[in-house]
Amino acid sequence: MISKALLTDLYQFTMMQGLFKENLHRTPCVFDRFYRKNPFNGAYTVVAGLEHVIDYLKNLAFNEDDIAYLRETGLFEEDFLEYLKDFRFTGTVYAAPEGSVVFPGEVLVRIEAPKDEAMLIETPLSMYLNHESLIATKARRIRSVAGSDSLAEFGMRRAQGTNAAVYGARATIIGGFNGTSNVYSAAQYGIKPVGTMAHSWIMSFPDELTAFRSYAAQYENMLVLLVDTYDTLQQGVPNAIQVFREVKERRGGTMPKGYGIRLDSGDLSYLSQEAFQMLKEAGFEDATIFASNDLDEHRIADLKSQHSAITSWGVGTKLITADGTSALGGVYKLAGQWDEAGQFRPTMKFSDNIEKVTNPGCKKVLRLINRRNRKLIGDLICLVDETIDTTKPYTFENPMYPWKCTHLEANSFDVIDLLVPIFEKGKLVYDLPKLPEIVAYANEQIKLLWPEYLRLNRPPVVKVNISQKLHELKQTLLLQKVKRNHHE
Amino acid sequence: MISKALLTDLYQFTMMQGLFKENLHRTPCVFDRFYRKNPFNGAYTVVAGLEHVIDYLKNLAFNEDDIAYLRETGLFEEDFLEYLKDFRFTGTVYAAPEGSVVFPGEVLVRIEAPKDEAMLIETPLSMYLNHESLIATKARRIRSVAGSDSLAEFGMRRAQGTNAAVYGARATIIGGFNGTSNVYSAAQYGIKPVGTMAHSWIMSFPDELTAFRSYAAQYENMLVLLVDTYDTLQQGVPNAIQVFREVKERRGGTMPKGYGIRLDSGDLSYLSQEAFQMLKEAGFEDATIFASNDLDEHRIADLKSQHSAITSWGVGTKLITADGTSALGGVYKLAGQWDEAGQFRPTMKFSDNIEKVTNPGCKKVLRLINRRNRKLIGDLICLVDETIDTTKPYTFENPMYPWKCTHLEANSFDVIDLLVPIFEKGKLVYDLPKLPEIVAYANEQIKLLWPEYLRLNRPPVVKVNISQKLHELKQTLLLQKVKRNHHE
Repeated sequence: MISKALLTDLYQFTMMQGLFKENLHRTPCVFDRFYRKNPFNGAYTVVAGLEHVIDYLKNLAFNEDDIAYLRETGLFEEDFLEYLKDFRFTGTVYAAPEGSVVFPGEVLVRIEAPKDEAMLIETPLSMYLNHESLIATKARRIRSVAGSDSLAEFGMRRAQGTNAAVYGARATIIGGFNGTSNVYSAAQYGIKPVGTMAHSWIMSFPDELTAFRSYAAQYENMLVLLVDTYDTLQQGVPNAIQVFREVKERRGGTMPKGYGIRLDSGDLSYLSQEAFQMLKEAGFEDATIFASNDLDEHRIADLKSQHSAITSWGVGTKLITADGTSALGGVYKLAGQWDEAGQFRPTMKFSDNIEKVTNPGCKKVLRLINRRNRKLIGDLICLVDETIDTTKPYTFENPMYPWKCTHLEANSFDVIDLLVPIFEKGKLVYDLPKLPEIVAYANEQIKLLWPEYLRLNRPPVVKVNISQKLHELKQTLLLQKVKRNHHE
Repeated sequence: MISKALLTDLYQFTMMQGLFKENLHRTPCVFDRFYRKNPFNGAYTVVAGLEHVIDYLKNLAFNEDDIAYLRETGLFEEDFLEYLKDFRFTGTVYAAPEGSVVFPGEVLVRIEAPKDEAMLIETPLSMYLNHESLIATKARRIRSVAGSDSLAEFGMRRAQGTNAAVYGARATIIGGFNGTSNVYSAAQYGIKPVGTMAHSWIMSFPDELTAFRSYAAQYENMLVLLVDTYDTLQQGVPNAIQVFREVKERRGGTMPKGYGIRLDSGDLSYLSQEAFQMLKEAGFEDATIFASNDLDEHRIADLKSQHSAITSWGVGTKLITADGTSALGGVYKLAGQWDEAGQFRPTMKFSDNIEKVTNPGCKKVLRLINRRNRKLIGDLICLVDETIDTTKPYTFENPMYPWKCTHLEANSFDVIDLLVPIFEKGKLVYDLPKLPEIVAYANEQIKLLWPEYLRLNRPPVVKVNISQKLHELKQTLLLQKVKRNHHE
């Protein structure tokens, strides 16, 4: 059976062999992963997917079937295939932890590795991070309009395959969801499995009331009754109230936690408000009103603004497929390499398109946080050896726009390194957090942003500056390039 | 390790246990899978994903870890968990083969199974078919504008997880693509792996010409040179021509098959036409001009209409994520069940929304094909015991719109059953076709449609009628429902 080591683009292998033949394959180099544009027209991205990248890198090795397949393609020679047999990931990786709130242009993963290793891993690393960050971001947008309501991920049947469903469900938890209907994902990641009732359950009984009663007898502690099968207000809600009364009496006057009704069709605003009135009049005003049906952040925001009485939401298709932005365009670019004399040579991609010019060198991201209100002042992309002395006044500025600067007083702000060490020379040095720790970190991260940055459309732009030193390096390389062009 | 048996929604399990407790779980019933709206505003959907459904059903069984997890949730009782230990899929499945071109409302999978089995499988069956059919359809749209050009799937790094990449690549082949850059998928499904050259290859050498030469020395038989790293027309194409001349001389005057250049940025129409002129003047007018960069069916159609000289396309993000329609909304509905006396009771879903009323009963789809030109006349949804005698004249009509009918002469048309047997009482009876056979079938299927149905936007609607008998059954059930409502 072939292994995940083949999970990459063909040209990564042909390039690797090409470099191998030229004896350039072990050139140490630095690659940056970053993205250029926030998904969904938002102000931020929530990082997810790192756990799967780590798992991939840790286990990266070619088995006999992998090698046999590569041989079969006729593209590879025996010396290279022999070389692959002991191939492992030996690089150093720094990355923004899962749950980090990040912005365009920032280095989110820094890879220092021999060039062939760095090339091979580009495709799967990009895939995991692009996909899972996209879903976590979509989930966070939904959380940002849902307040403290309960949010459940319901999208498996429309997901783009098993991993989209399983990893996707995990990413929604990082983005602020409370549970998933996906049992596999729940089991795998210790997520709360959630679910209500199927229409086919109701239709398996002679009438709705009998169906509700049978369900209540069995699932008193997850008593959410689906009320829209026949007629929501004429029949569904009255039948639910009838059963709630019976349960209440059976339990000596108390109701089980989380009991309520589910709406899955019709106008959710109107139906929820009417249902709430009926429940309230019957003494069940604390009943959960759970809604589903093609929801996303925009529809939930609308329903909230129309005073719907919904307190719990099931979000499926549009969440698990990241409707609106089908892919996060994360890229992976060479930022420098060491020459034969051991000298580091920063490199950058030039482009006629100014925003496609990359940042050269071995970089990191410093996050400046206001010490008083714990809000983000902005992020600074700088070279790895740079520091900021927070005991002194500091001018936070972008050398490209020097008039747009922020003066910070001494001891008024904290500085945090966004990237943390994950692998050091191939060895995993990162203590993988459990999902609840990631969730706690993610919830803290989003609080760094003022509410206006959570706006669904046209939010303000979070300040991300580059350091003076990085700016100078960039200018030097641009000038060298201009001179080279004139010379040619 | 938990198994794929947990790949479903939690409520499927709670409903299953509920029916188990009521001893209703083994009620034989019929479920239909169908969809209501074509993706991408097109006229059709291409079926894919059946192979993964079959694999899932064949291997469906709960292992000890699955049972242990379900126990852990606290929702399930020991008698039910004990029951799950020997649980297998024992149902009968009829389905439209992969590659079939299908239309809204048609039964695409018919499941006859005990109710608990039919419920459990709903979620994964829907997921595989929704996802893979969506990608195959997107690919077919791209193929429909690309003519006989070569099409390569390049989307792995932006796919929504591993399965989206691996199964997705397979689906693009069913939709008419020629190859994929995804090595894993290529190995798994015997697809042609394709790839060109990375920008980081060019940047690993002192200059572009050296990089091209090194590549040509190693990969003469996949000699596609990436010409946009520095300056496409000033430098990239001239360097490529230089290397082509050297290769030609080395080979005694012939060029290797498929040699050419790749454009990955800039205005692809202008650049391809200029590059073509330069190649032509140098005697390389048969060079492949390969293009990539955020392509989809609309952009390719535009480039074609502007006489671009591109002959080969690499399509990534927008294909592998089905940009434009993030999910195919396939649904799965109860169509009938057998009562305790063994009598079949057709059921249907009523809805205020007319197009959401489902078709009751045990159904199939007959495909009427014009014998002379082999074009599709239309599809008929009917009950399983219905037949059409092609030796007699036949009126193809929809009882709901009797004025829109087509009179067919005797012996002027053929009738084909769209659905084929896949499982009979749990036993796989379908001889799984290899991918090339599926591709051949898919290519024949699309030819059933006149070209206007392949139009990207606002194509005409393919005729799908329901039979007189099915119409009558529907009317009877609707009338019963109306009477019941009055009675209540």
